Amino acid sequence: MIFVTRRTHFNAAHRLNNPSKSEEWNQETYGKCNYPNWHGHNYIIEVTVAGEPDQETGYVIDLGKLKKIIKERITDPCDHRNLNLDVPFLEGIIPTSENLVKVFYEQLKQDVEQSASKGSVLYSVKLFETERNVAEYCPYRWTK
Amino acid sequence: MIFVTRRTHFNAAHRLNNPSKSEEWNQETYGKCNYPNWHGHNYIIEVTVAGEPDQETGYVIDLGKLKKIIKERITDPCDHRNLNLDVPFLEGIIPTSENLVKVFYEQLKQDVEQSASKGSVLYSVKLFETERNVAEYCPYRWTK
Amino acid sequence: MIFVTRRTHFNAAHRLNNPSKSEEWNQETYGKCNYPNWHGHNYIIEVTVAGEPDQETGYVIDLGKLKKIIKERITDPCDHRNLNLDVPFLEGIIPTSENLVKVFYEQLKQDVEQSASKGSVLYSVKLFETERNVAEYCPYRWTK
Amino acid sequence: MIFVTRRTHFNAAHRLNNPSKSEEWNQETYGKCNYPNWHGHNYIIEVTVAGEPDQETGYVIDLGKLKKIIKERITDPCDHRNLNLDVPFLEGIIPTSENLVKVFYEQLKQDVEQSASKGSVLYSVKLFETERNVAEYCPYRWTK
Amino acid sequence: MIFVTRRTHFNAAHRLNNPSKSEEWNQETYGKCNYPNWHGHNYIIEVTVAGEPDQETGYVIDLGKLKKIIKERITDPCDHRNLNLDVPFLEGIIPTSENLVKVFYEQLKQDVEQSASKGSVLYSVKLFETERNVAEYCPYRWTK
Amino acid sequence: MIFVTRRTHFNAAHRLNNPSKSEEWNQETYGKCNYPNWHGHNYIIEVTVAGEPDQETGYVIDLGKLKKIIKERITDPCDHRNLNLDVPFLEGIIPTSENLVKVFYEQLKQDVEQSASKGSVLYSVKLFETERNVAEYCPYRWTK
Repeated sequence: MIFVTRRTHFNAAHRLNNPSKSEEWNQETYGKCNYPNWHGHNYIIEVTVAGEPDQETGYVIDLGKLKKIIKERITDPCDHRNLNLDVPFLEGIIPTSENLVKVFYEQLKQDVEQSASKGSVLYSVKLFETERNVAEYCPYRWTK
Repeated sequence: MIFVTRRTHFNAAHRLNNPSKSEEWNQETYGKCNYPNWHGHNYIIEVTVAGEPDQETGYVIDLGKLKKIIKERITDPCDHRNLNLDVPFLEGIIPTSENLVKVFYEQLKQDVEQSASKGSVLYSVKLFETERNVAEYCPYRWTK
Repeated sequence: MIFVTRRTHFNAAHRLNNPSKSEEWNQETYGKCNYPNWHGHNYIIEVTVAGEPDQETGYVIDLGKLKKIIKERITDPCDHRNLNLDVPFLEGIIPTSENLVKVFYEQLKQDVEQSASKGSVLYSVKLFETERNVAEYCPYRWTK
Repeated sequence: MIFVTRRTHFNAAHRLNNPSKSEEWNQETYGKCNYPNWHGHNYIIEVTVAGEPDQETGYVIDLGKLKKIIKERITDPCDHRNLNLDVPFLEGIIPTSENLVKVFYEQLKQDVEQSASKGSVLYSVKLFETERNVAEYCPYRWTK
Repeated sequence: MIFVTRRTHFNAAHRLNNPSKSEEWNQETYGKCNYPNWHGHNYIIEVTVAGEPDQETGYVIDLGKLKKIIKERITDPCDHRNLNLDVPFLEGIIPTSENLVKVFYEQLKQDVEQSASKGSVLYSVKLFETERNVAEYCPYRWTK
Repeated sequence: MIFVTRRTHFNAAHRLNNPSKSEEWNQETYGKCNYPNWHGHNYIIEVTVAGEPDQETGYVIDLGKLKKIIKERITDPCDHRNLNLDVPFLEGIIPTSENLVKVFYEQLKQDVEQSASKGSVLYSVKLFETERNVAEYCPYRWTK
């Protein structure tokens, strides 16, 4: 099994706020991340596809195609945008990194798997909010 | 002459907009950076002090003191804030990296030079908006 | 399943030496790492928690809380210290990266899991001795 | 289970071309990577060994020994070389990252496992063609 | 004086060889860099412009324009190419990093200074052949 | 004028202590850096040579030769050593980064300038104690 990863980036504003909760709850829960006038990040996203290389091309997935899918599905809608206000597929989502990677995975799955070699799967999506704070969604990496 | 640098970071939202100009001018000049609902960055700031090490301590400046000055003067007012709306010393400034480094330099100069060894100067302030886009203010590095 | 990682650092001295063995064995086994007067590293530690985000907060774990636990359990006792001499929970341990990650995992497990969302586990602890030499302890990632 | 990783690098030229296909197919499939006069990369390779630390040394594997094996088996034959023309064990392989990691894994497996602690395995080989494009071969990390 | 830097990258093959010298001289002088079948690098280029920000835009130079100039003048001709064979403006140049930065500077100077604020100059071009080997051309930074 | 830089690294232990001062003065001045049982760093050193490329080789300095000089003069004596106890040329020096770069520059100057192209100078030595704390010695970069 081979894992192929493409890394790219976008810049966005956001804040953490649960509108079904009180202002006090939000301030206590989210601290500086709840400040009303937004803050932002240089997000880095890593998308990993797992599978066997195609015999003819030697590719699990053409990274040029993967780059284009990430651009259309994630970067174009999110770059230089406000993740709470501007992105249709994030409506109603509290933009923690945990929630973002789950939604990004769903946004990418179908297109990625159609462009990859036979039997390949979208293995994981990893999001660096900063180089110190990271979230990853991976439905496959787990054995207890 | 010895140059001592402290590197730190903060996260903030901003947009580029010159309120004395038309909406069209702003959209054409700033492109995605003018989007109305803000975007943001993980800013990295590098502050450099130039001088001779103190004979007793071996320090041009105690980097712990420099860290504290940067925190009080830059990071605490800017972190998780909106640079257009929330920071008193940035009022009326279009927050391009070029303008930010100039203001940050002025914010730091007096405190830094009082904490550094005799004769030392605040040499430069460098700001990474992203790892690809960087601005530096340095009143000393220039000979044509 | 979502994986959330916090990355932080500390600086420490150490040497590799097995006191139950001869000086010759130690020199041959550990080479430069056995030099008597210590050497040191800028250690980087990455702590990963796996689980489902809490419905109300969107957090697997509040990274601010995780940061505080790592500081109390690992960074405060180890930073600017000698790992062979100064850290009570490392007494009797040869401080290879392999041994350190195992002990760090045990130091963190209970506090981390109590602060994380229901059902979450401390998934792994990764330690960069340098950017070239890395060890990770993970009791979950394995299927032969 | 502990995972120990050694990271190193080499510089090489290559191009992607399937000699059993037409020129048109190759140009369309590989784009710029098919340009006739070669291009090149600063490859970074990460080799991970999984096992239990030896009781006496505290090592899963002596990273000095691992470094030497990677040098003999991978870096010496590949560094400053043309991966299509100069490396005997790559003959007949289209040098995509996917194909390279698989062959590198096979080149390393026996020597690495003989130098590691009892029961340890060569867990994975990861290759960064650039910091944005990465492939990894790992026969163990998979549960559907 | 404010310094604005844009960082970008390209991948290329090259070898070092002085055709006016003997094969022995070249092998002795350049070692592995003289191997006949080429090797390659992920080159990183940093272009720095020095000047005063324009009053209306707050820009020394619009980094989007700078990005476009670097693409047209450097990246498009060099990316995925052989620096000895494929790039018209490098004909007759031994492609050491020292020689490359000088030629790149000349390729960029006119376009960059026409796009920058009044009085700004192309201050320097820096080229990372690897993260360990770097060359910079700067006609301004020097006082003996 | 062209600037050529070689980056390398070594790992060492040290502590900051001025033996001509009281224990109280040292604790207050140096804080954690004064802890008695040492701490350590993964030091990164960058050595920059300035000059014109040799006409025949295209080199300001052969980076292979520069690498060898740094190894003999700096890395071999300092790597895996205690900078307060083990390094003859650091005897009597308080090992702050400021003091280290000055001594490293003097250690390197003669050998480097003899190996570089005619008229070249050792321009600067830069030392990263961590990626956040950096010192540089440069006798040339200064105009007030």
